[in-house]
Amino acid sequence: MKAYKELGKEELLALWEDLNRQYEEAKEKGLTLDMSRGKPSPAQLDMEKDFLGMVISDADVTTETGVDCRNYGLLDGIPEAKRLLSDMLNVSPENVIVFGNSSLSVMYDTVARSMVLGVLGNTPWCKLDKVKFLCPVPGYDRHFAITEQFGIEMINIPMSEDGPDMDLVEKYVNEDPAVKGIWCVPKYSNPQGYTYSDETVKRFAALKPAAKDFRIFWDNAYAIHDLYEDKSGDLLEILSECEKAGNPDMVYEFCSTSKVTFPGAGIAGVVASAANIEQIKAAMTIQTIGYDKLNQLRHVKYFKNIDGMKAHMMKHADIIRPKFEAIENVLAKELGGLEIGAWTKPIGGYFISFDAMEGCAKEIVEKCKEAGVVLTGAGATYPYKKDPKDSNIRIAPTFPSEEELRMATDLFVLCVKLVSVEKLLQNFR
Amino acid sequence: MKAYKELGKEELLALWEDLNRQYEEAKEKGLTLDMSRGKPSPAQLDMEKDFLGMVISDADVTTETGVDCRNYGLLDGIPEAKRLLSDMLNVSPENVIVFGNSSLSVMYDTVARSMVLGVLGNTPWCKLDKVKFLCPVPGYDRHFAITEQFGIEMINIPMSEDGPDMDLVEKYVNEDPAVKGIWCVPKYSNPQGYTYSDETVKRFAALKPAAKDFRIFWDNAYAIHDLYEDKSGDLLEILSECEKAGNPDMVYEFCSTSKVTFPGAGIAGVVASAANIEQIKAAMTIQTIGYDKLNQLRHVKYFKNIDGMKAHMMKHADIIRPKFEAIENVLAKELGGLEIGAWTKPIGGYFISFDAMEGCAKEIVEKCKEAGVVLTGAGATYPYKKDPKDSNIRIAPTFPSEEELRMATDLFVLCVKLVSVEKLLQNFR
Repeated sequence: MKAYKELGKEELLALWEDLNRQYEEAKEKGLTLDMSRGKPSPAQLDMEKDFLGMVISDADVTTETGVDCRNYGLLDGIPEAKRLLSDMLNVSPENVIVFGNSSLSVMYDTVARSMVLGVLGNTPWCKLDKVKFLCPVPGYDRHFAITEQFGIEMINIPMSEDGPDMDLVEKYVNEDPAVKGIWCVPKYSNPQGYTYSDETVKRFAALKPAAKDFRIFWDNAYAIHDLYEDKSGDLLEILSECEKAGNPDMVYEFCSTSKVTFPGAGIAGVVASAANIEQIKAAMTIQTIGYDKLNQLRHVKYFKNIDGMKAHMMKHADIIRPKFEAIENVLAKELGGLEIGAWTKPIGGYFISFDAMEGCAKEIVEKCKEAGVVLTGAGATYPYKKDPKDSNIRIAPTFPSEEELRMATDLFVLCVKLVSVEKLLQNFR
Repeated sequence: MKAYKELGKEELLALWEDLNRQYEEAKEKGLTLDMSRGKPSPAQLDMEKDFLGMVISDADVTTETGVDCRNYGLLDGIPEAKRLLSDMLNVSPENVIVFGNSSLSVMYDTVARSMVLGVLGNTPWCKLDKVKFLCPVPGYDRHFAITEQFGIEMINIPMSEDGPDMDLVEKYVNEDPAVKGIWCVPKYSNPQGYTYSDETVKRFAALKPAAKDFRIFWDNAYAIHDLYEDKSGDLLEILSECEKAGNPDMVYEFCSTSKVTFPGAGIAGVVASAANIEQIKAAMTIQTIGYDKLNQLRHVKYFKNIDGMKAHMMKHADIIRPKFEAIENVLAKELGGLEIGAWTKPIGGYFISFDAMEGCAKEIVEKCKEAGVVLTGAGATYPYKKDPKDSNIRIAPTFPSEEELRMATDLFVLCVKLVSVEKLLQNFR
């Protein structure tokens, strides 16, 4: 295929005629498809039948330390669940607190606590004139929504396949005491599916923050969410790296089983240093009497151990992998060589990141929507929903069926072509 | 029995000899009993066998509106669970949001949100020089811990059998714009077991707050927690009273099933006006993707409706009632006529409130502890843990067995007598 930018005006006009006709036909199909959020599909949820049907008997409700999971107590989680999550992240159980059903709300609380109470004795952020967070972009919209709600200024940091631009990160963190945090999805990043390189993790651990209360918000949401059995994004364990580098308290790590068992009915965890754990627990004592220990027990009894959990994740992969590949095949076949878009080829996680020609993303998403295919809003992957290049689109392959996905992707590539041609035609005005 | 204060020095000394000998003997028994917290007993938890064993089948995971409870979605709760909680509190389902496993954390979040974001467009409380809460006393220690953590000044309001001293409440709320809230447990109050009278509720609803963002924090924790089938503390429904009085937005009501099904594995709810609900939901959108809908479904399928829930509560009552009565019998038999203590006789809730002679509570709790019986710390029922009269002790009858309870109460009355005699002897120094 010839690159679109090589085409002359007449060729582009003819192409437009053809694409536009196809688009009008597509609209008449009346599709209603959704590739907007990282939701597991019904097939994945059906697979959890045994988990759903799990019965904990009356004789079986105590932890290995003899605590009754049906009653109050054990603020920071049952030991068995701590071990399961710590094995998931290659850390020690004593560095883990097990929370409720949502790691997002734990991240929210972590920011809220830092705002109101401060971090390890430092001035609460709400008392400061200015608080800034670094935001590797494109990134996860719900992270940015948290810091926006608290009035924290967000600074874009470009991403590469190795992770955030560490020269920039070092400059901001080491020089500006108003920079208090950075949002990271270090493994199978949202939306690109990149895994931070060893060098990136080591440079994170070796930061010399101008602010003593600077923290890395390490959202390890896809720690065991591989798509292939023989390929895995290997991520260095950050807590021990920080410790080795003399920054033991610099990171809060988050995880959950939302995409292991059930979204909304899983368990979440925080990993941190002893000092951070102590502060979090002290604040938690006021906030709650404890989380749902029966659900923690259900997870432990279902998976037995980390091996059980990892084997289970391969079953998810078997359902998800063909969907990723179906999209990638359509993209390669239909857009290869046209130079009007680039996309990532993740080996794990829940998303594909697509970069259209500059100034085209909003229009592509809009055109898809008009024809019945909902994508994540253009701009959503950037702080304040502002993509400076109006280029990035997040594709979430997991929820629709393969059949639906092919239809949706066909429409998507059609819209990419159509909008790109329209954009290129502007050069001839 | 003769009142202790009528006794002369010699009589008191002889009495002390006898009581102290009994106490030394009691210490040798090596008791380890706990009457400190409102925890359900193992017998109550065992009763929930069927709830624990409930299986939701794959075919049965959608709400009545067709939403899959296994996936993300329905931020504010499934309709069936909204209805169950709304029936529990005699309000409309559209005034309900269903949360996770803890109403305490919802109350915490409500204060936190008001601090950071403000209430319905008013200045966030953290930006104000001074924020005050009224605290009916004695009251619930975990309420006071929340407002203390946020640096909110707490003002004691005396309680009577009809509820808080409303003359004082009106004076503070209607005159001081720094007064932003009041903590209430309106039915079977913690620790007295009092239910606010109709007049009290109506006076609450008719407040004319100096602060537009004043809110009543109405913790209806024991809404259906009667001890008797034929006696119930009837509480006027506050939301509609506030509406009638022209103050529709003035109240946040909280509830949970922590003491209906399982502590830590129940569901919690907030009841509020449309405007408040809208603000809470807007904030929640940032905070979480949603709570555990499978657990909401479990509750609905188990109880079917409010009648099922109320019938279930009578089974709890059958277990708890004898414990309350056992304590009351010992108190009446051993302390009746001595004029060294007064106690409440609740018909619902989880606690009995005991008032010792002034200056005796700490010493009584300490003496009990020395002999192996743990009570809620003296002072805990007051803000800042400071009981100005050092008189109030909260008794939590539910967790120990009846046998244990009798032993614990025997020791308690012994300590009350001993400490009272020591106090009275000080008059003869």
